[in-house]
Amino acid sequence: MTPRLYCFAESGHSYKAALAMTLAEMEWHPVFVDFFTGEARSAEFRRDVNEMGECPVLKTDTLTLTQSGAILQWISDQTGKFGGAGDDRYEVLRWVLWDNHKLSSQLGMLRFLMHFVPEEKRPQDVIAFVQSRARSAFKTLDAHLSGRDWMVGRDVTNADLSCCSYLYYPEPFGFNRADWPNIDRWLSCIAALPGWQHPYELMTRAYPGPPKEET
Amino acid sequence: MTPRLYCFAESGHSYKAALAMTLAEMEWHPVFVDFFTGEARSAEFRRDVNEMGECPVLKTDTLTLTQSGAILQWISDQTGKFGGAGDDRYEVLRWVLWDNHKLSSQLGMLRFLMHFVPEEKRPQDVIAFVQSRARSAFKTLDAHLSGRDWMVGRDVTNADLSCCSYLYYPEPFGFNRADWPNIDRWLSCIAALPGWQHPYELMTRAYPGPPKEET
Repeated sequence: MTPRLYCFAESGHSYKAALAMTLAEMEWHPVFVDFFTGEARSAEFRRDVNEMGECPVLKTDTLTLTQSGAILQWISDQTGKFGGAGDDRYEVLRWVLWDNHKLSSQLGMLRFLMHFVPEEKRPQDVIAFVQSRARSAFKTLDAHLSGRDWMVGRDVTNADLSCCSYLYYPEPFGFNRADWPNIDRWLSCIAALPGWQHPYELMTRAYPGPPKEET
Repeated sequence: MTPRLYCFAESGHSYKAALAMTLAEMEWHPVFVDFFTGEARSAEFRRDVNEMGECPVLKTDTLTLTQSGAILQWISDQTGKFGGAGDDRYEVLRWVLWDNHKLSSQLGMLRFLMHFVPEEKRPQDVIAFVQSRARSAFKTLDAHLSGRDWMVGRDVTNADLSCCSYLYYPEPFGFNRADWPNIDRWLSCIAALPGWQHPYELMTRAYPGPPKEET
């Protein structure tokens, strides 16, 4: 069975898995999750697909994998790509973990609070707090990329595919490529890889636009 | 050279690595990091120890490892313990990633904001927001542990050692064992493992107490 990825285009975590399989030239099928109606957090989804109530989920004949970093590791084990050679695999893993801990987690939340939550309900104190944490993460990432094309070693790895994921989205979340020249250059390197696609090309969008006024 | 772990006792992330090495009966030496004076975020620490400005860091003769999940993986590769067998290793990795993304990251921040930040500077809106996210994570964890002794398979793994880490601390961060019976039982299982120690026994504390009034 071709692996099926439960995903939606606004999910940067789904994008990591979708992009890695695409760049590795694996066959995969998307299964659309209607996130903004609450599908991923429903009792049925938790029971049948992922108890964590989250995307992405990858299903194969024998495995159900969740958490983008675990799916990336599985893709590397299947294809021999993106996992890093020798001890570099720990270096790749540490950036994947850092991304989950300090980067993507903050950015996904920020974009949600700054764009997908209705304007009058946006918690400004929380947004300011998370933005300050996101800026610290951008600083660490930009400093690491100084003088490097790739995050680990001399080629693209899961470290790049994990950390880049939210940074291609056009919605506002306090990130401007022009402010971070090393990140900017590195995002262009990744986007120049053969087969690269933007998340909105690779998966189906779930956000229906701002809610209509009730009548 | 015996592996050296840069750590301090209030760091739940450090505790994961310290506990895993202790339970695996590996030799290791702690190197105390004076976190509350800003040592981990200093220019020297970023240059010489960890560009991420964080603990823990593990140094061996040939490797510098950071991010608790990467250190846990290395310990498993060295000892054959806690990594999960066969495809279970993806299941272990996914809970380690989930912990970094949804559990430890929130709890470390909450405890910092609710206890280590001076009372008059505590951002109450942010605390309420993060507490609500932490409660979602407790729900997921408690539901997963229903009817299980261990998070993955039939023995302790990195999934347990990662997810449990902040839950033994006595400072307030919105978690009461009595509210979560499955988590409570599982924390007792882990604490009953031969060699288990509380973080405040295993490492040196860095928090000097609340700041004195200026004179």
